[in-house]
Amino acid sequence: MAKRVTGPEIEKLIQLLAKVPGLGPRSARRAALHLIKKREQLMGPLSVALGEAYDKVKVCSRCGNVDTSDPCTVCTDDRRDQSVIIVVEDVSDLWALERAGAMNAAYHVLGGTLSPLDGVGPDDLNIKGLITRVSEGGVREIILAVNATVEGQATAHYITDRLSDLPVKITRLAHGVPVGGELDYLDEGTLTAALRARTAI
Amino acid sequence: MAKRVTGPEIEKLIQLLAKVPGLGPRSARRAALHLIKKREQLMGPLSVALGEAYDKVKVCSRCGNVDTSDPCTVCTDDRRDQSVIIVVEDVSDLWALERAGAMNAAYHVLGGTLSPLDGVGPDDLNIKGLITRVSEGGVREIILAVNATVEGQATAHYITDRLSDLPVKITRLAHGVPVGGELDYLDEGTLTAALRARTAI
Repeated sequence: MAKRVTGPEIEKLIQLLAKVPGLGPRSARRAALHLIKKREQLMGPLSVALGEAYDKVKVCSRCGNVDTSDPCTVCTDDRRDQSVIIVVEDVSDLWALERAGAMNAAYHVLGGTLSPLDGVGPDDLNIKGLITRVSEGGVREIILAVNATVEGQATAHYITDRLSDLPVKITRLAHGVPVGGELDYLDEGTLTAALRARTAI
Repeated sequence: MAKRVTGPEIEKLIQLLAKVPGLGPRSARRAALHLIKKREQLMGPLSVALGEAYDKVKVCSRCGNVDTSDPCTVCTDDRRDQSVIIVVEDVSDLWALERAGAMNAAYHVLGGTLSPLDGVGPDDLNIKGLITRVSEGGVREIILAVNATVEGQATAHYITDRLSDLPVKITRLAHGVPVGGELDYLDEGTLTAALRARTAI
C-alpha cells in the first residue's frame, strides 16, 4: 500500500500471511481482514495453535515424521504392522498415503531425494536411519513410495543397493493409468508401463 | 485423515488454517507442513504477529476502519484532506481504494449494506456516525463508493436522503467500462452506462 492505512501490527501480519503457501499478497490481506473479523473464533485460537505447534513440534528420530512426540504417533502405533516400512520423500507424502488409507504400515521419511546437482548426497537424507531400522531385524518389507521422477528413481535404486545384503523384500509402487485418468492426456511412458503391467480381468 | 499420523496440536493447527479464506482442507495441510519446516522464520513470527494483532486490533470509533489505534491511522493523518469522506461498505474496500492511490481523502466504513431480507436496517450500519461527522461541519464532499449492487445502491440512496438537509456535496463513483475490459464480456447495464456517460476526446 502506498500510504499507511492501518497499524504496523496488521501490516506485519499481512506480510507474514503472504508467505504461507496458498496465500499471495492479495489473499493475505483478505485473510487478515477475515481473521480480524473472527477475532475470538479464529485469530486468537490460531495464534495459540501456532504457538503450541512451535513449542512442541519435533522430527521423529526413528522415522523422520513430524509430530509433537518422539517417537511419533505412527512409530508407536502398535495396531500398525511395523514390519512393513513405506519409504517416502516427504512428510506430505506420508499424509497423502494415509489419506488413501490402503496400508496399515510404518513409514520412513527420507527428507528429499538424491540430487548431485543440488549437492544432496546420501548423507543429507535419512537413509542411514532406514538401514539401521532394517538391520535391527523385524522388518519384512520395504515399499519404496518415492516420486516417479528421475531423482526419486535414482534414490530408490541407491536404497535398493544399500539394502541388498539384508534379508528384506523390497517393492515399489505400481506404474499405470491413474484412477479416473483419461488415456488421451497421459504421457507415453505411463501408457507403456500400463500396457506392460496389464492384468487379466 | 482416517488414522492419526501426527500429534493433536498439529491437527488442531490444520483445522484452524483450513478456516482461513484462500486455504481449504488440503492447502491447510500443505501450509501447516511449510510452517513446520520454516519454524523459526515463519511459524514463530506468525504466532507472535497474530497474538499482537489479537491484543491490539480495534475498530476506529470515528470511521469504522480496523487499526491498532483509535482514532485510526487514516483519521489522524493530517496530510489527508479530511474534508472529503469516501464512504465504503467494508474495510477491504478502503484498502482497495488506497491501493489505487487516486485520492488523499478520509474514509467512512459502513460495515455492510442495507438488506431488509437479511434483517440489516440503518441502525445496524455505521450511518449515524457518518451523519454526526458531517453535522459537525468541515466536510465538503461525501463520495459514495459502495458496490454497484442493488443493496449498495439502496444504501447509497438512503444515505443521500439522510444527508439532503446538510450543506455537503454528495457524489458517487462513475459507471463505465473497466480499464483493460473487453466490451464483448460486459453486461448491457455497464455498456449503457458507459455510452450515456461518454466523454469528449
